[in-house]
Amino acid sequence: MKNNGQDNDIPQWLETAPKKNSFRSILKWGDPKAFKNPSKGFLKVIKQELNLTDNDFTTMENIGDQRVEDSSPVYLSGANLAGLEKIVGKENLSIATYDRLKYTKGKAMEDIMSLRLGQMKDICDLVVHPRHKKDVKAIVSFCHDQKIPVHVYGGGSSVTFGLDCPRGGVTLALSTHMNKLVSFNETNQTITVEPGMMGPVYEDLLNNAIEKLSAKKAYTGGHFPQSFEFSSVGGWVVTLGSGQASSLYGDAADLVISQEYVTPKGSFKTIEYPATATGPKLNDIMKGSEGCFGVLVSVTMKVFEYLPDNARQFSFIFPSFESAVDAGREISQGRFGMPAIFRISDAEETDVAMQMYGLEGGILDKFMGMKGMKKGRRCLMMGQSEGEKTFAVNVLRQVKKICRKNKGFFLTGYPMRKWYKGRFSDPYMRDALNDYGILIDTLECSVTWENLHSLHKTVRRVVKANPHTICMTHASHFYAQGTNLYFIFITKMPELAEFKTYQQSIIDGIEAAGGSLSHHHGVGRMMAPWMERHLGCEQMDVLRAIKTHLDPNGIMNPGGLGL
Amino acid sequence: MKNNGQDNDIPQWLETAPKKNSFRSILKWGDPKAFKNPSKGFLKVIKQELNLTDNDFTTMENIGDQRVEDSSPVYLSGANLAGLEKIVGKENLSIATYDRLKYTKGKAMEDIMSLRLGQMKDICDLVVHPRHKKDVKAIVSFCHDQKIPVHVYGGGSSVTFGLDCPRGGVTLALSTHMNKLVSFNETNQTITVEPGMMGPVYEDLLNNAIEKLSAKKAYTGGHFPQSFEFSSVGGWVVTLGSGQASSLYGDAADLVISQEYVTPKGSFKTIEYPATATGPKLNDIMKGSEGCFGVLVSVTMKVFEYLPDNARQFSFIFPSFESAVDAGREISQGRFGMPAIFRISDAEETDVAMQMYGLEGGILDKFMGMKGMKKGRRCLMMGQSEGEKTFAVNVLRQVKKICRKNKGFFLTGYPMRKWYKGRFSDPYMRDALNDYGILIDTLECSVTWENLHSLHKTVRRVVKANPHTICMTHASHFYAQGTNLYFIFITKMPELAEFKTYQQSIIDGIEAAGGSLSHHHGVGRMMAPWMERHLGCEQMDVLRAIKTHLDPNGIMNPGGLGL
Repeated sequence: MKNNGQDNDIPQWLETAPKKNSFRSILKWGDPKAFKNPSKGFLKVIKQELNLTDNDFTTMENIGDQRVEDSSPVYLSGANLAGLEKIVGKENLSIATYDRLKYTKGKAMEDIMSLRLGQMKDICDLVVHPRHKKDVKAIVSFCHDQKIPVHVYGGGSSVTFGLDCPRGGVTLALSTHMNKLVSFNETNQTITVEPGMMGPVYEDLLNNAIEKLSAKKAYTGGHFPQSFEFSSVGGWVVTLGSGQASSLYGDAADLVISQEYVTPKGSFKTIEYPATATGPKLNDIMKGSEGCFGVLVSVTMKVFEYLPDNARQFSFIFPSFESAVDAGREISQGRFGMPAIFRISDAEETDVAMQMYGLEGGILDKFMGMKGMKKGRRCLMMGQSEGEKTFAVNVLRQVKKICRKNKGFFLTGYPMRKWYKGRFSDPYMRDALNDYGILIDTLECSVTWENLHSLHKTVRRVVKANPHTICMTHASHFYAQGTNLYFIFITKMPELAEFKTYQQSIIDGIEAAGGSLSHHHGVGRMMAPWMERHLGCEQMDVLRAIKTHLDPNGIMNPGGLGL
Repeated sequence: MKNNGQDNDIPQWLETAPKKNSFRSILKWGDPKAFKNPSKGFLKVIKQELNLTDNDFTTMENIGDQRVEDSSPVYLSGANLAGLEKIVGKENLSIATYDRLKYTKGKAMEDIMSLRLGQMKDICDLVVHPRHKKDVKAIVSFCHDQKIPVHVYGGGSSVTFGLDCPRGGVTLALSTHMNKLVSFNETNQTITVEPGMMGPVYEDLLNNAIEKLSAKKAYTGGHFPQSFEFSSVGGWVVTLGSGQASSLYGDAADLVISQEYVTPKGSFKTIEYPATATGPKLNDIMKGSEGCFGVLVSVTMKVFEYLPDNARQFSFIFPSFESAVDAGREISQGRFGMPAIFRISDAEETDVAMQMYGLEGGILDKFMGMKGMKKGRRCLMMGQSEGEKTFAVNVLRQVKKICRKNKGFFLTGYPMRKWYKGRFSDPYMRDALNDYGILIDTLECSVTWENLHSLHKTVRRVVKANPHTICMTHASHFYAQGTNLYFIFITKMPELAEFKTYQQSIIDGIEAAGGSLSHHHGVGRMMAPWMERHLGCEQMDVLRAIKTHLDPNGIMNPGGLGL
């Protein structure tokens, strides 16, 4: 343990890479050697709101430093193990408990808490690293015949228990080998990749297309979820993810031109068209299927000319959440194109941000006060316009005009640029806080404009029903018809069972208030129990009918999506 | 018969409204009292290319003036007729042959030819005019129990035999009563309507939302197919239509926020969200189902602020189809937003247009020649930008820049404005030419940029394999990944069977050349025989599985989509 260099010694943050084969090496976010600790300002808010003192930051508990022993029995028969080994070769499968645990756990708060406690529930029996789609075909066919469950692991960033294996079976780790470029078509502005290609590799290929793909221009994929660095292209598509720039580029589903799937009932590739009217489209039906219908083995995505020099940042402070949202709605309905990044924080998130960045009580704070932007009410909006230069400049100009009309006060592009630099690194902070028993979790939904404030109030009430809890909310994916709301809640709650009940009460609250169960996290097994009530049995039965057709033995990610 | 006032007497065009209850009253396009005859220039091209003389324009044949006799037997039992009458009332059903024929025939060339010949194949047994979704529920439930086929008629503009009733049964005429506004939500920018609302009523409501919907602003639906005046909102959605302004507003499928369906297996309404990540979406799965899964009973669509004053028209002439398409691709990939209307005509369509408008041989023609824009090579591009003012102006500016770079020559906005005025009326011309045995038909597909020229050449070759045939082609729906190609072919071919074989050879050609079987006409029964080869049996089997689930007795539009 190393002091992170703060003025006082409390708290000390753990800044050593996890031990090899430890639970912590599985639960820790991202790069083993990277850390991000709460700023002094943020810690101050946490102490204050969670009613904590320095005493709460003296002893770390459940850091998950213990080694994962090779103790978990394998329930696959020797014949089945041999059959699978014959397909991929000895070097591409593992029955080591550590590997099985690693490829079964996502990044939900429960995943992390259970790992800290050394628990190993619902893990797979075998991790297989298929080399190509031929391997996947052989594996799915074999598992179909032998009725062995098959799960798919892309980047492992699921926050919905999407990787759990309650019936054991096989987990296919796609990022090991199936992470390659298949083809790039500059004329059509499409790229085809294997599903296990990770975000940074994908974006790097496109940004450097002139050198790496012999292209005439540079490109971007336009998809930057917070998990960007540790999620895969295939994962984005099968879980219906959204990136931080989705307001312009579209959600993952909007970026998909074609997909190729291997299912127990056969394989198919949807044809590459810009659009088609040949009936309900398999290219749509398969999006969001989360491995329950089959395995995505290649995907063709739209790409966009990369024009980073044209980006224009903005940020505004508004006297209230209502006025910020009104401006957000007008912008989204303004018919001048959309900012790529576009975010509105509610009052609590804004106040926390002010303290995090040490702005509270400073000149800016006083100035805001003079402008009637009061703590507990004022809300931050920020964003970035992109695209062709005049387009990007005009988006910025229109945003400014609409914000001013709604009593927004321009804060320059500085806060946006500051946020941008750290935009993928916040999950690291969770590990630091978790070490002292402080939980951070998020739940999110989509909502129409009309229902936004009612839902926001309802869900906040549910979150705040737990005393000493921070609840920060933002909207970060905008459409002409509405937006998403992303709730971040921070509290101290040592018991996993208690946390689970708490989390469920929030999901209940979102559902009852008319929010979508998920805007971009997907369903997994976390939302699965709500799916029937949410969609109705008639709609669930259609999904079940597709599942039964493509996967008659029910081997594909059993229990995922609630199917 | 009335002389249309041309200088000579040949040809005389028929300009009298069809007789009541005649076949012609069914086959004639649009308003019974509206006519549009080929211009002298167009007629000159037709004579020249089809190798016709004035002798071919002296006698009209098969004008379909005969009365539809009440002769076609009804194959529904008395008990079934009584059961359905009990649901909707006597006044809302008809077994008259005329009505049954009228609500079974679309606007495919074969529909019209067979009506001219007085044929009555594949008509329904009964036309029912449901009053509301409760009626539809009762009818579908009754027909499911009694195994009676159910078909849906919206505006009747299908060009794919989508309305045929090869097994008889019931046709639901939705435009009679189920044509009402359900709700309008200005905050969410959505409108919910019954499916039988016709295009002009829908757009009029939105354009006049301030008076008619007590809105603060005026809106547009942004959807203007050529059939706009005689097609229904529901029809747009279930056949995956596209409007003339789709390059900006999106295709019908992109405009749908929520749908409510009645199926033999139950009813459901998808929830209104701007986006959702709750697994594969029924809102997508049902789009394009063409009545084969159930009956669409209400639909919620996106609307857009109506800003007609900001529209900017443009047209350009290019030295070749290749240079025009290159410019079209650069524009579609330009990241400054899209023109709303955007069209590129190939060389033959451009030449015909020049003659239609009497421009050939004139000053403009000579000027084009000087600029190297030669007949047989030069291609017309035109379009209209819309949206917020600076956005629309910038789109125009960028279009000009890209066109100039690709050797396009600006022809002002005049040709676009001229086209715009007549944009819904060309189908009237078909009737006039058909009266002299000249057939006009269209087939269309979508295609990626890379495959565009190869497909264009291949399909033209197939069309031109029939001697004395005009083949005009345009692209009119643009995406960053490709566009559509719309083939109009004009020839003299008196035999229906010969025409059918010819048409099939063109569909074969499109499919073999890698085009989508349909970009926006849908599948119906015309493309159905190609669906399995086109999509592959694995994909068709998924559609069949959904069909079997929602419609276990196979009563919903049997044979539609090839299901």
